[in-house]
This record gives sequence, C-alpha cells and structure tokens, in this order.
Amino acid sequence: MNYHTLIEPELIDTAEFIKKYWRSHVIILFLNCQVKYSGRAESFLEYGDRILMIKPDGTLLIHGQSKREPINWQPPGSTIVIRVNDKVLVIRSIRPHPREEIIISSPVVYVAAAFKCTKGKFLLWGSESEMVDFLIKHPEIFEKGIKFIGKEVQTPYGKVDLVGEDSKGRFVIFEFKRSIAQLQGVSQLKRYVDYYTKLRKDIRGVLVAPNITSSALRLLKEYGLEFLRLQPVKRMTAIYRVKE
Amino acid sequence: MNYHTLIEPELIDTAEFIKKYWRSHVIILFLNCQVKYSGRAESFLEYGDRILMIKPDGTLLIHGQSKREPINWQPPGSTIVIRVNDKVLVIRSIRPHPREEIIISSPVVYVAAAFKCTKGKFLLWGSESEMVDFLIKHPEIFEKGIKFIGKEVQTPYGKVDLVGEDSKGRFVIFEFKRSIAQLQGVSQLKRYVDYYTKLRKDIRGVLVAPNITSSALRLLKEYGLEFLRLQPVKRMTAIYRVKE
Repeated sequence: MNYHTLIEPELIDTAEFIKKYWRSHVIILFLNCQVKYSGRAESFLEYGDRILMIKPDGTLLIHGQSKREPINWQPPGSTIVIRVNDKVLVIRSIRPHPREEIIISSPVVYVAAAFKCTKGKFLLWGSESEMVDFLIKHPEIFEKGIKFIGKEVQTPYGKVDLVGEDSKGRFVIFEFKRSIAQLQGVSQLKRYVDYYTKLRKDIRGVLVAPNITSSALRLLKEYGLEFLRLQPVKRMTAIYRVKE
Repeated sequence: MNYHTLIEPELIDTAEFIKKYWRSHVIILFLNCQVKYSGRAESFLEYGDRILMIKPDGTLLIHGQSKREPINWQPPGSTIVIRVNDKVLVIRSIRPHPREEIIISSPVVYVAAAFKCTKGKFLLWGSESEMVDFLIKHPEIFEKGIKFIGKEVQTPYGKVDLVGEDSKGRFVIFEFKRSIAQLQGVSQLKRYVDYYTKLRKDIRGVLVAPNITSSALRLLKEYGLEFLRLQPVKRMTAIYRVKE
C-alpha cells in the first residue's frame, strides 16, 4: 500500500506509526506543537497547529500557514528519535555535522499520514549547463575568433563555467546565470578574473545571463567586465536566442 | 474545524475540496501526477506518486520521497486554477512576475487533506542582527578605540551591516555571517570596501562569523581584509563569546 492514514490517533499510536513507516514513506502530521531548535543559532516556536513532514532520508520540515520556506527544518542525513512522555509526543531530529537539534513537543495529533512517493524522470531545460553548451556550439554569438579551452575549470575560488581564448590570445572567463544576474554573480566572476590575472595578463571576464540588475551592471562596468545576454527560448527544445 | 480529509476521492470532489478550502487551509494532496513547468527555464516531471502542498498565500510545493527542496515550487502570490478534464485533474499555478507556470495533471488522488495552521510566536537567537548589537555593546572584542557610526548602511551594492571608525580615523566595514563564512561573504565585504575606497582612503574590512572556510580565509587575506570570530553561546540568551 502506498499510503496509510490515522485520524485523531492516540500519541502512542502516532509514535508507533512514525516508527513503522518513516524509513519507507514520507510522514505527514498535522499537529499542535511547540518547536525548539538549537545549533548554529537558537529558536523557539510557541504552541500552534502546524504541518510536520519527515522523509526517509532524514529531512524534516515544519510548515505553517504561509510562505515557501518551512518555519524549521533539518537536512537529509538527520536522525529521528521518538518517544511519548507524560502525555506529550516528543520528536527529536538530530543533525550530526554541524550539530543541530530540533525538538518537537506535541500534546495533540489531528492527522497522521504516510505517503510512499515514486521516482519519475525529471527533465530540465534552460539550465546553466545547457547555456554553456549552446555558447560552445555557437561561438559567434560572443565574438568571431573565440576558442573554448575548457568547461567547469576548477580554481581555488570555485569552478569556472567556461574558459576561452580570444583572437588576440587573451583568456576569457565566462560565468553563466540562468536567471537575472545579481551582484553576487559579478563578484563571483571578479574572483575568477582576479585569480587568472595572477597567472596571465589581460584577462577578460564575461557574465552570461538572460538579464542583469542595474546595480550588478554598474559594478560589472566598474570592474571592466562584460555582459552577454543569452535568453533561453520558451520551448521544450534547447534553443537559445541572443537579444543584444 | 481545523482539518478535513478525503480518502480516495473522485477527481471532481478533489477539485471542489481544493476550491472550498485553499484560501483558509493548507491543502495537501497525495496523488499520481505529472508536472510541467515553464518560465525562466522549462522542466518536465514524469508521472509518479507525489505530495502536493498549496498554501492560502499561493505557495505551491511538490515534494518527493527525499530531499529538503521541493521538486517544483511556486512562491507566495501565485494563483491557482483548477479543473477536471477528461478524467484528469488539472491544477495550474501561475506566478505573474516573472511569468512562470506549473501545470499538474493527475489521474488519481489517493488522499486530500486541508489543515488550518495557527500562528505562534517565533523567536530566534543568534541572528546576524543580534551579533551586530552584541559587537556594538562590546566594542573591545574588536579593538580598543573603535567607534560605531551606523548599522545597516545603504550603499549602491547592498546594505552594510555595520560601519565603524578606528582610533586612527580609518573607516571599518563589518560584514556579519551567522554560520560559516564562505567565498560569497568575502566578495560581499570586498564590494563594500571597494565602494568606500572610492570615497575615502584606508578602508578596513572585517568579516565577522563563528567560522570561515579555508578558501574564504585565503581570499580574505589576499584582499587585505580581516576576520573576527564571534561565536553565539548555545543558550537561550543572547550572549556571545569571542573564541580567537
């Protein structure tokens, strides 16, 4: 069976339910609870009705009435410990590195459910890697005479998406962003350009994205870097179009 | 009632259920579905059993068996359109700016639930803002003679956490990170220091965090910037301790 549900279960039954299914199913509880978190910071969430999700990989999410982000969470690799203590269900989630702990205390569970999800192929178009491949296939979009030397080149400051050499023999460092390029993207490119400048003179840096914020463009110009607008065409084929 | 559930509902009943509750409750469906996304990129998720969450603020999340991140998602402010079409439940979620659309097609819904979450006070200790306030109260942690000029100072390249002036009259720019400082944090600080260098000579830049990666520390030193280790004490009080 790919799902199981309990309506207004006893706490002890909820504990058994979680122990039975959490390694094979995604557990969802709708419950009244308070949440304490300690680790890199500390937080405390007062009693209220919330949605708890526990996945077989150890992921734990506590969702409230609004927002994309969970109120509290633990990443995959966390461990679950469950007990019932004096009419309170206590669910502890422990992340080993860095040590972080979430303690959920619940006097009432309204609904407990266990859902076994299946895998399905996930295909993504318009990724940064596709943009890189498109530019490699169509070098004239950047400029005549550019030759590409390497993809995903490791440096002490991160992986450079694409490195080329222009017709004058200058290295060209490309950093790709699949949506609007921000200040961080400019700084990232600058780090790579600074690094290559120590090895060789006259390094060019190019930020490639469908768009760029005005503050990022200003910073890019100040640093003497370049922008190439590359727009994924909105179709289920990996075709790109250059707009500028 | 703060929750409602349907087990193996007809598609038409599921559609009515969502329409009835999604503005007041968080909807959770366990269903077989495929998912198409188009917007800044394009993606396609093949048919499989998954968990769909829709919140009253328009947030939509599709979760699978593992990982913290949803497979697909839309942010708050998105709009839901539901219809039943030739034995398929079609749920469209539209984000207006930038235009992005998710289309979920489901031939089978196993469980539909509506949960009304409540608010509870959420308290966070060890935030960046608390670290800033602690340093302001204990300037000697940094060095004797430092005077703080302003918090959250707006620049064209973002908000500077804290600006001070040292005993020699030099500006000191502080950037705080509540967990391990990474390359991005160094670049962010460098942007601010570069900006202030245009206005005034001899700018010092200080990255404040509980820890720093080795590559970030290397870059920091190359840029001539400083690191201050500030560690939140693991207690429910906002006490900090400097380790180095």
